[in-house]
Amino acid sequence: MDIVKKNEPITSEQIAEKLNLTRSALRPDLAVLTMLGVLEARPRVGYFFTGKAVDTLISEKITDIKVDEIKATPVIVKESTSVYDAIVTLFLTDVGTLFVSDDEGNLQGIVSRKDLLKTAIGNTNTHQIPIGVVMTRMPNIVTVTPEESAYEAARKIVDHQVDALPVVKAVIENGQEKYKIVGKVTKTTITKLFVELGKN
Amino acid sequence: MDIVKKNEPITSEQIAEKLNLTRSALRPDLAVLTMLGVLEARPRVGYFFTGKAVDTLISEKITDIKVDEIKATPVIVKESTSVYDAIVTLFLTDVGTLFVSDDEGNLQGIVSRKDLLKTAIGNTNTHQIPIGVVMTRMPNIVTVTPEESAYEAARKIVDHQVDALPVVKAVIENGQEKYKIVGKVTKTTITKLFVELGKN
Repeated sequence: MDIVKKNEPITSEQIAEKLNLTRSALRPDLAVLTMLGVLEARPRVGYFFTGKAVDTLISEKITDIKVDEIKATPVIVKESTSVYDAIVTLFLTDVGTLFVSDDEGNLQGIVSRKDLLKTAIGNTNTHQIPIGVVMTRMPNIVTVTPEESAYEAARKIVDHQVDALPVVKAVIENGQEKYKIVGKVTKTTITKLFVELGKN
Repeated sequence: MDIVKKNEPITSEQIAEKLNLTRSALRPDLAVLTMLGVLEARPRVGYFFTGKAVDTLISEKITDIKVDEIKATPVIVKESTSVYDAIVTLFLTDVGTLFVSDDEGNLQGIVSRKDLLKTAIGNTNTHQIPIGVVMTRMPNIVTVTPEESAYEAARKIVDHQVDALPVVKAVIENGQEKYKIVGKVTKTTITKLFVELGKN
């Protein structure tokens, strides 16, 4: 693979020479690599390296990783928390997004740095404003489940232009559908996963 | 590969049967896949699927992508911009980080949402504070060059716990080393790249 990548187009004779092998010894390997889509053979020109097989493998790997394996711990506050206390919590816990739940841990809202900044800039008394007033409220929140893939989570973050997704499990409570917060996936989570994949 | 992945451990006889082939027809393919590190053969047990070769391919691909190919357009303001105007710019341009340059486009500083939030919460008059006072100033800024890899950029973001890196080119001006801002790489850039890799 490396030889073809660096010397394409290259004939099987040339590859054989570089490896100090006969052409016939090489034939099955080239056949399989071509079949796998790693190499492409053009008659009377030689072999080319094609990224296609690699792209498919990468895409398979990324869709194989589940949200459950990568999810991070969310910082959760109550709806009655003041904007001031929410900002302090954001700095103390060093996160970018706060999740808001009821006493049972069910998702009610989500507050971003931008929501807090918008409120802080115009108001002198952020102690008096509960975050329930400034948060994005259910059902207007993009969520993800532990069973979905890392790819699916990243796609939702990009498509909906949000920084973070709550990872939720749907439960029925008193005949109503509720969403328990069990984690979060953020742009940081995806960036860390990207670094993991790049290590090696 | 798929057959082994789903049925491991599986013997060559069983694979041949599933594909309606003879064992000897299959032998070269299995030999190459084992050599590539995609499959692992254990005597008297059968073939296993090993992610090793796939991990190496992914890691190679990620380090092959250059910052120059993925960099986004930075929003640049002047040092004298007020914190209030910087916050307005942040919302109008829908970004998370502002870069600060001199009149020649040389990097002077960087301002995050958290820097602005910290200033906004305690101060009633953000019109009077220039961002030069609150920004992180050179040389305390983590930068990346267009020639570095996407992997390297993501690693810097994770290791230094920042949201964004300015992409810079070093130039000598009046005997001093300066850094021209030519782009940015953020957690959003990496998340978008991750989605690109997952598509297919």
